[in-house]
Amino acid sequence: MAQPMFDRFYYGGDWNPEQWDESVWIKDIRMLEDAGINEATINVFSWAQLQPSEDEYDFSTLDRIVKLLVDHHFGIVLATSTAAIPAWMARRHPDVMYTDFEGRRHKFGDRHNPCPNSPTFKTYAPRLAGKLAERYADTPGLVAWHVSNEYGAYCYCDNCRDAWIEWLKAKYGTIEALNKAWYTHFWGHTIYDWDDIVVPNALSDEWEPGCATLSCAAIDYRRFMSTSITRCFTDERAAIREFDKTTPITTNLMSVFMDIDYFQLGKELDVVSWDSYPRYDFPASAVAMRHDLMRGVGGGKPFMLMEQTPSQQNWQPYNSLKRPGQMRVMSYQAVAHGADTVQFFQLRRSIGGTERFHGAVISHADTENTRVFREVSQLGAELKEYGKEYMGGHVESQAAIMFDWESYWAMYYSSGPSVLLKYVDQIHHYYAALYRRNIQVDIIPSTTPSDQLAKYRVVLAPALLMVKPGVPDAIESYVRSGGRFVATTMSGIADENDQVILGGYPGAFRELVGSWGEELDALPPERPVGVRLENGGDVTGSIVAELIHPVTSSVLATYTTDFYAGTAAVTVNTVGSGKAYYVGTHLDENGMDWLTDVLVRDAALETVDTPHDVEVRVRDYDDGRQLVFVLNNGPETQTVNLPERLSGTSVFDGSRIAGLFDIEPYGLRVIRL
Amino acid sequence: MAQPMFDRFYYGGDWNPEQWDESVWIKDIRMLEDAGINEATINVFSWAQLQPSEDEYDFSTLDRIVKLLVDHHFGIVLATSTAAIPAWMARRHPDVMYTDFEGRRHKFGDRHNPCPNSPTFKTYAPRLAGKLAERYADTPGLVAWHVSNEYGAYCYCDNCRDAWIEWLKAKYGTIEALNKAWYTHFWGHTIYDWDDIVVPNALSDEWEPGCATLSCAAIDYRRFMSTSITRCFTDERAAIREFDKTTPITTNLMSVFMDIDYFQLGKELDVVSWDSYPRYDFPASAVAMRHDLMRGVGGGKPFMLMEQTPSQQNWQPYNSLKRPGQMRVMSYQAVAHGADTVQFFQLRRSIGGTERFHGAVISHADTENTRVFREVSQLGAELKEYGKEYMGGHVESQAAIMFDWESYWAMYYSSGPSVLLKYVDQIHHYYAALYRRNIQVDIIPSTTPSDQLAKYRVVLAPALLMVKPGVPDAIESYVRSGGRFVATTMSGIADENDQVILGGYPGAFRELVGSWGEELDALPPERPVGVRLENGGDVTGSIVAELIHPVTSSVLATYTTDFYAGTAAVTVNTVGSGKAYYVGTHLDENGMDWLTDVLVRDAALETVDTPHDVEVRVRDYDDGRQLVFVLNNGPETQTVNLPERLSGTSVFDGSRIAGLFDIEPYGLRVIRL
Amino acid sequence: MAQPMFDRFYYGGDWNPEQWDESVWIKDIRMLEDAGINEATINVFSWAQLQPSEDEYDFSTLDRIVKLLVDHHFGIVLATSTAAIPAWMARRHPDVMYTDFEGRRHKFGDRHNPCPNSPTFKTYAPRLAGKLAERYADTPGLVAWHVSNEYGAYCYCDNCRDAWIEWLKAKYGTIEALNKAWYTHFWGHTIYDWDDIVVPNALSDEWEPGCATLSCAAIDYRRFMSTSITRCFTDERAAIREFDKTTPITTNLMSVFMDIDYFQLGKELDVVSWDSYPRYDFPASAVAMRHDLMRGVGGGKPFMLMEQTPSQQNWQPYNSLKRPGQMRVMSYQAVAHGADTVQFFQLRRSIGGTERFHGAVISHADTENTRVFREVSQLGAELKEYGKEYMGGHVESQAAIMFDWESYWAMYYSSGPSVLLKYVDQIHHYYAALYRRNIQVDIIPSTTPSDQLAKYRVVLAPALLMVKPGVPDAIESYVRSGGRFVATTMSGIADENDQVILGGYPGAFRELVGSWGEELDALPPERPVGVRLENGGDVTGSIVAELIHPVTSSVLATYTTDFYAGTAAVTVNTVGSGKAYYVGTHLDENGMDWLTDVLVRDAALETVDTPHDVEVRVRDYDDGRQLVFVLNNGPETQTVNLPERLSGTSVFDGSRIAGLFDIEPYGLRVIRL
Repeated sequence: MAQPMFDRFYYGGDWNPEQWDESVWIKDIRMLEDAGINEATINVFSWAQLQPSEDEYDFSTLDRIVKLLVDHHFGIVLATSTAAIPAWMARRHPDVMYTDFEGRRHKFGDRHNPCPNSPTFKTYAPRLAGKLAERYADTPGLVAWHVSNEYGAYCYCDNCRDAWIEWLKAKYGTIEALNKAWYTHFWGHTIYDWDDIVVPNALSDEWEPGCATLSCAAIDYRRFMSTSITRCFTDERAAIREFDKTTPITTNLMSVFMDIDYFQLGKELDVVSWDSYPRYDFPASAVAMRHDLMRGVGGGKPFMLMEQTPSQQNWQPYNSLKRPGQMRVMSYQAVAHGADTVQFFQLRRSIGGTERFHGAVISHADTENTRVFREVSQLGAELKEYGKEYMGGHVESQAAIMFDWESYWAMYYSSGPSVLLKYVDQIHHYYAALYRRNIQVDIIPSTTPSDQLAKYRVVLAPALLMVKPGVPDAIESYVRSGGRFVATTMSGIADENDQVILGGYPGAFRELVGSWGEELDALPPERPVGVRLENGGDVTGSIVAELIHPVTSSVLATYTTDFYAGTAAVTVNTVGSGKAYYVGTHLDENGMDWLTDVLVRDAALETVDTPHDVEVRVRDYDDGRQLVFVLNNGPETQTVNLPERLSGTSVFDGSRIAGLFDIEPYGLRVIRL
Repeated sequence: MAQPMFDRFYYGGDWNPEQWDESVWIKDIRMLEDAGINEATINVFSWAQLQPSEDEYDFSTLDRIVKLLVDHHFGIVLATSTAAIPAWMARRHPDVMYTDFEGRRHKFGDRHNPCPNSPTFKTYAPRLAGKLAERYADTPGLVAWHVSNEYGAYCYCDNCRDAWIEWLKAKYGTIEALNKAWYTHFWGHTIYDWDDIVVPNALSDEWEPGCATLSCAAIDYRRFMSTSITRCFTDERAAIREFDKTTPITTNLMSVFMDIDYFQLGKELDVVSWDSYPRYDFPASAVAMRHDLMRGVGGGKPFMLMEQTPSQQNWQPYNSLKRPGQMRVMSYQAVAHGADTVQFFQLRRSIGGTERFHGAVISHADTENTRVFREVSQLGAELKEYGKEYMGGHVESQAAIMFDWESYWAMYYSSGPSVLLKYVDQIHHYYAALYRRNIQVDIIPSTTPSDQLAKYRVVLAPALLMVKPGVPDAIESYVRSGGRFVATTMSGIADENDQVILGGYPGAFRELVGSWGEELDALPPERPVGVRLENGGDVTGSIVAELIHPVTSSVLATYTTDFYAGTAAVTVNTVGSGKAYYVGTHLDENGMDWLTDVLVRDAALETVDTPHDVEVRVRDYDDGRQLVFVLNNGPETQTVNLPERLSGTSVFDGSRIAGLFDIEPYGLRVIRL
Repeated sequence: MAQPMFDRFYYGGDWNPEQWDESVWIKDIRMLEDAGINEATINVFSWAQLQPSEDEYDFSTLDRIVKLLVDHHFGIVLATSTAAIPAWMARRHPDVMYTDFEGRRHKFGDRHNPCPNSPTFKTYAPRLAGKLAERYADTPGLVAWHVSNEYGAYCYCDNCRDAWIEWLKAKYGTIEALNKAWYTHFWGHTIYDWDDIVVPNALSDEWEPGCATLSCAAIDYRRFMSTSITRCFTDERAAIREFDKTTPITTNLMSVFMDIDYFQLGKELDVVSWDSYPRYDFPASAVAMRHDLMRGVGGGKPFMLMEQTPSQQNWQPYNSLKRPGQMRVMSYQAVAHGADTVQFFQLRRSIGGTERFHGAVISHADTENTRVFREVSQLGAELKEYGKEYMGGHVESQAAIMFDWESYWAMYYSSGPSVLLKYVDQIHHYYAALYRRNIQVDIIPSTTPSDQLAKYRVVLAPALLMVKPGVPDAIESYVRSGGRFVATTMSGIADENDQVILGGYPGAFRELVGSWGEELDALPPERPVGVRLENGGDVTGSIVAELIHPVTSSVLATYTTDFYAGTAAVTVNTVGSGKAYYVGTHLDENGMDWLTDVLVRDAALETVDTPHDVEVRVRDYDDGRQLVFVLNNGPETQTVNLPERLSGTSVFDGSRIAGLFDIEPYGLRVIRL
């Protein structure tokens, strides 16, 4: 079960004292202590400083930074610095730099630049991690090891190609098996020799991003790259573990980042940590979904909010400020969804480098007398007082949504039916509908076994395009035993090689949903389709409309326009003691609310009605405690009517919170049940 | 004259059994026979399968496919498979892969990837074509040879450069002649040595696509590439003809595809075939125009509709379904414009590869019980019954539009006056105006001699920018003898080297139209110009407004706004017993309808008034028969009032069709006169 | 002081007779003489013709061209032809061609193509300039030497890299100093060896244009490139000066072109010349601003309008015609702002090459009987009569705007706060507000010493992001002595290494403006902020809103919306006998007009109220004469009410011009005071 991983609530973030004179360091510490900061994430980009040349290491600056933090009882998240290659290494060992999608080997510069299969990188990165572990394993206050930083870039060099071919040999055994999986008879792509294989990029088979002749080959390259990057992590982890057997090891993830299968990488992390950078116009549901995904990647355990900005970002088109209170409520949103830390990028704003306009606790004004510093301090005081109470709780969800990186990739490579059909959008579309009713959601891998599915009253698999072996059986077993399952257009249509399953959509789930889809109409933006619901309501569908034939299913909604007017748009099939829904179009918000109502009724889901912008979450603790978080994510005062079952006393002042009350803009309540 | 090239109406399309287990093959054949399919286009992408290595050929799978088709009396369009280079060849002979516009040699992958001047390709492609011909020339039911597939990609490698220089030497003889033709004193581009010449691409003189310092050089490279690709075709043709003297040889064209001069390639084809893939929002006139262009490329002879989708495409942004009946009426539209076959891409939908969401006769549902299969079957039955009657007819047109690939290229490289001035748009603008009155149009090369022009009552040359020697004389002679000719802004302004002809626009046609254009104003979208017609009507012009001085001409329309208000926008000049019109701006639809009226009156053109979406075409047969096709290309029922001269009896049921009648959505009538 | 540099008013432009048979030359001269043209700019792109090979030079054609011009008493602007590398040189010495931002060395073609640090270029270009000077220095009528043409392209080759490293060594002395200036601890970019340094481009540290990890490094590369290009100019200048000690030497600039610091290059020019190519929808203020910038680059001296089109351009999306009179008024606008010549690109329109649709005095109609030719002739007659009177005047301005190429670059590399914040837009925003009141403006470098600032009543430094040492002191001294200074958001925030100055914005000007900015909110387009002015007016701000704390300043305007409603948006601080304003948001036009009113009142600026489109300028002469130019830049008749102090007699007819009068579309008055 969920347990607090840390002894206190860590509140801090990235600190880069190596950018500053030491006179600034002590000033920073004093200010940070004033703000209630108790943690610093350090050494994220110091490789060049730590290793000035081939065999020379210099930890003197880091020693002083660590000592200062230890002296001040800071928790330390110690990074391994391997995200950015030193200039000298790039020059002397060009293989260490990545080769991009256009086939161009890069020179020194930028970040996220190593080739994950570079012999040089594979030698030097774990060596550095090991040296750091050897030196700092026993540092008091060491919170976690932070390997690399925001893993990302794919490489397309010859070392990667060679390693890929070995990976393919291990996976397929024979060329025949590979040809079959890759469907190489298409466009005459038959391979006769392992050495014929080239990496799929702009110079070969992925002629523009997302357009690959053989999607299975392109997906295999993604699997391989995801595996290579995961191996970079485990290489460093192993080096650390030689000297430190216990401190948690993590790397910071980026929620819906496409290029790494985080369920794969997540398995290797002792604790998931992630960086939350919503655009100014993201709805709160989009942030909530990302938290839930990250919690899911960690198997439901508490996670670290490794980075967020206290005020603004710098790399968006419009880097708007977080409004007063907004940073606080976003921090609590993270906690409500399972975070056990609140950390910022960054503690002090840099004065140079591309991120110099990114927000920080200590701004360019270099004073405590700023709105942001005050808000950080207020939250710091609050977390010092109550933070420990928040920690270690799990999130009990009656609903689960399957998220699958391979389906994400398959959708990316899907040529047709519509450019508007995007994987994360589809996941969010269903997530947001549940969120509007405050239904808690776990985001889970598609391979979740049926006994683990059993705890959910409803499981949704929007656009779960590729289905791994065993998945349909697990889901069917779940439904037969009473579960509710929702499949959508594009769910279940292809096998693990992205080959379409014959017999009508949704392929692997066809019998389960009791309907088959004959055709997939793409709806241009100016041509939505009308949909009539079983309750008489009229809504619209967009993006796609699937022409569905109910077989054993009942019709819940029908199209009202175009030549398929009168035919099924949504069906439900009773299987054993459960039900399987099939949704053939992208329903509008009213349509999605109706669908949620149907599920709520059918699966007896608990909901809370709140005004738009207000979110209610419950975190459960192993000792039986429950905390209710009532969050106003918006800029207006809202009136909430809290159901009796969620009423209780305020964590902050012990007052009773129940029934009807107002909640101020970006305000929040934390309630002990 | 036009004669049926085939013994029956072929109804079929691409079939790729090599993607499937043989158990599927026989199932396919049974279903296809049920659908009335009698033809299969095979072997389009099988090079890798046919030739596993340097000197090894393996026809065993193809033998079995052919045998199955022969056993079932299918017609066979046998492709040579050379569109996609095998992986092993790309690895062992890198010269075979094309070098792209950015100067990057590609590795294995994608399709349409050979360098047309690669020694490897020139060796292996004809050798394969020859081996296929040797083996399959006597196959019963062999309909046609299908060389390569949708020829396309340009190459910019050193082999192409060397071959280009040889081509230039042959064309120009001396460096001086080349410098003169290329206008190399501009920007100091003087060449002193053949070896100074570099291919015009992103690394040299075409700094971005469409922007070339020396347009004549860039156009020469296009001429050379078009010639090289045509030579790829004739190389394979020659290899086939060693073993098969009679079967027609074709390759599938792509209508207005810019990169190949189809009038050049078309001359080498025994029969033109083409692939019709309109976007969902194409007007019917745009498809009609493409059919007429393809018929023109074949010199007016019947052509093959080599590919169309029975339902949807996969590579458009929105791959909407064809509505019920739409595939049928589009097939008839092809026939009405001169097609003697109706073929699909494809017969069975693939389950992998980038085209897996492209429509097919047998869908992923893998059953005959689909709308598409039923529609295909209905059309199959109809074509089996009546198809032969449709074949071999020609299309008699009173109007002709000149289409010129070199002008297309010259417009592409024209820097100024407006980015909105695009060649195909201009052609369609005039085509559509005639189409709205059901005036049949031949699309002809600009080099059509005057005796062949003589059969047209009106000839239009919109934006015929570059004029080859002899063209102005032929047109003048045509007009003088009574023809009507329409030139527009940008027509006739440059010689065969894309050098502007002095003395006022439209240069080569200046005396003929009896007007000269002084300036070309570019109209931004927010600044249309008013135009008053001789009938008092007020319309608008857009994109460009040419300031025209009538000399011997009369004014038909004048501008009403801007500083050139009151000056001529459209003029007409009487020459001999004919007339030459000059149109100085891009008239709106009302303006174009007026212009059509003027031409109809002046040239006594036959027209048929039909509602929007309804098209009437007549196909004439050498035996004196005439068929009238009345096509409702739209989704609404329309009421048609057929003139007596087009009345007759229905091909389908012998009923009389005349006068006023309703025609259902996507419905059609075929009438024997 | 300003003196006429030339003995007569030169009216002419680019002439490329080498593109034509000699029979055309004499025809051109006759037509040009008819039009009052008295100058030709020649030899701009003739390198390939002048130097057919390594050691061979051929001046015979140029000799004939020069002789013809001399015989006809034309002034000659003689170009050195080095802007476009000959084909043979590109082939034999590939180092001469530039390597682009993507790291690709170019082959022959295009223009502006030399690598400025190529040994080949550094040898051959000055050698050609010297040979030209040796041969033509004594040519009668030689007006000026025109080096290269529109200097531009950056190069990223290894020669440039090596030269850059030497430049960096000279600048920084030690690696430590470089690391400090470049802020290399950011993202671990520490350099240990000069040889580690790579040029910042798409393959290294400028991952996409404008996105650089280390902005100071990227700016240093721009400084180095600007210096290298300036050195190309001075190399040729030195070669010319060996043979010609007196003729002015220039190169044609491009106003706000980003890549060259024109204040650096401008210092080396004997006379500034520039090419004015406004887009059809540019407001007149945008053109006026460019003239003033170019005059400023020349230190206030009269400049040459080296190029403008008499009618239309060819490389814009919509190449609209200049309306009747518009070319004349635009010519006078140049003169009013300090031009002593009016020159066209070009005299005869080419018939080939990418600029064949660019306007010219002699059009493709090849006759004098054109609107453009007539307008050119009318202006020619006018300039022949009055031009000399216009020459040599200076422009007295009470206001100055600082323009700084390094701030331009720093804004380009600024990641955040908003993509809408663009340097030239910000300059124009303030310029346009003054322009609307006919306040004359000098555009000056930020390093202008305080004694030179003293002559201005107000100095504005919009978005002067990077501040060089000494600048804040000079400005403070200026203010203290009674000057008015306007800083805006982003002004003064960084030092000469683009490192942000701590303590609150606007950093270097913080004490001067008596306010400090705490946060910079980015306003998406749909979220403007309300601003209330001290006069009670309500306006809006957009793009950014800075949260400002007045310290010693007074508040002039406050925000009315968002959480910072009620806080300062604009402040003013009294310092000594002057004042410093600080503007925290991008005010709308009404807001800017209010700000101008405040400055007018406060600094006693002289203004003239005119209708929109009408501009009044005064040019002062050393002999005490003054000319007033009243220009109607728009297409409607306007009524002007000229203040008494600007009344006088018409230069054209001696009539009195005063008080209220109408001025026709694109009309103008020139008044002797």
